[in-house]
Amino acid sequence: MVLVSPRNPLNIGAVARAMANFGFSHLAVVSPFEAHWREARSAVGAPELLKNARETPSLAEAVANCTLVLGTGTLTYRKAEQTVVRLDTLAPLVAPQLERDGHIAIVFGPEKHGLTREDLSYCHALVEIPTDDKQPSMNLGQAAAVCLYELATRACATTTLPAEPQLIGNTSRKAPPTSANLDILAELVEEVMVSAEYSPATMREANRHDLRLMLRKLQINAADSRRLLGLFRRILWRLKRIQS
Amino acid sequence: MVLVSPRNPLNIGAVARAMANFGFSHLAVVSPFEAHWREARSAVGAPELLKNARETPSLAEAVANCTLVLGTGTLTYRKAEQTVVRLDTLAPLVAPQLERDGHIAIVFGPEKHGLTREDLSYCHALVEIPTDDKQPSMNLGQAAAVCLYELATRACATTTLPAEPQLIGNTSRKAPPTSANLDILAELVEEVMVSAEYSPATMREANRHDLRLMLRKLQINAADSRRLLGLFRRILWRLKRIQS
Repeated sequence: MVLVSPRNPLNIGAVARAMANFGFSHLAVVSPFEAHWREARSAVGAPELLKNARETPSLAEAVANCTLVLGTGTLTYRKAEQTVVRLDTLAPLVAPQLERDGHIAIVFGPEKHGLTREDLSYCHALVEIPTDDKQPSMNLGQAAAVCLYELATRACATTTLPAEPQLIGNTSRKAPPTSANLDILAELVEEVMVSAEYSPATMREANRHDLRLMLRKLQINAADSRRLLGLFRRILWRLKRIQS
Repeated sequence: MVLVSPRNPLNIGAVARAMANFGFSHLAVVSPFEAHWREARSAVGAPELLKNARETPSLAEAVANCTLVLGTGTLTYRKAEQTVVRLDTLAPLVAPQLERDGHIAIVFGPEKHGLTREDLSYCHALVEIPTDDKQPSMNLGQAAAVCLYELATRACATTTLPAEPQLIGNTSRKAPPTSANLDILAELVEEVMVSAEYSPATMREANRHDLRLMLRKLQINAADSRRLLGLFRRILWRLKRIQS
């Protein structure tokens, strides 16, 4: 479970409690508001879970070891750029990941506005809780409880969420690439694009965003990811040799 | 949705929000703590739902028009006297009720200790949220969200919870008896027991409790309920004639 910049200490506590209720233990918090995070952690009766929570400056680092990153949010105010999955139909997406020892993260944005477009570009899919059109926006602690209930009882039965970070590149052939693997590949492809003068510098931000989305949509496996890395390294080497 | 003596106004607000999120609108509150209930109702941004909530002095009155009453709680500290159903397997119990125009209530106890044994004797089944043994106790607002999510997405898809109270005895042949129907029958049977000197007066409380449980376990339909009423009325009449 990853919380991006949560604000309300009560909500952070509620998320931790729901995680304990459904047997999940790995919480990561991305650039929290320091005072609120301190307050949540020092709360009386706060479980071990909050004390052991990881704190990272970016979402990319929080999900680096994950092979399936699930963003959460409603589609009321925007169009999704990635696959949208209703929470109650999540099991077929999650089960194969767990069979292949993948690590899954479910990501919640700040209370006020949810995950940004940039945040979502690190997600393989956007999970939508099927709520009523008249009142679609859920409280963070309640939304987390509902998602964890679905994961615990159906999508991953006896399995728990992300284990501690593994060494990157050390994944088995069967496993899907981790988020960090994809980021390394994306950086390399971007370097190739620049080297090949693929597009003007002003487009670089937009290209980076689209590339991140595309690599997650392709659902390549870890072996493909390594193959692509090799290919693009070779291309880059050739391009640089031509230029020099 | 029925809340028995809720304490924390934040929890009451959270329950109302979850109901709105999942398209439910009928809330009843049994003997709430007045100050907390007032505070919850006057909360800024509280939905219409809280303003329209029914307030009843007893659980029997709150569920009078319901044909299926579902209590909630964990079995960590007690043995259940009625059927226990895991939340994620609730659909087969709920669907036939809705097909026969039944009214369903889901009941939550006070935050501290949950529903009492007496409260549960008005319930046809005890719904258990499958939580981790190490931390089984859920926050009220989160437990409500999880139950309503399950009901909305699976158990009753497009249907909403209890409509306004109907005239008692006006149920169709197909429909199961309402909680109030069963209470009338139970009172009559009790009168017969007293009249027939079935057991000493000290046993009356225990008998009443067992009778309530038994009548809900039998799953009689409305027609059977009327038949039994007729039979026991006749028995009572005969008993009284003999005595006079």
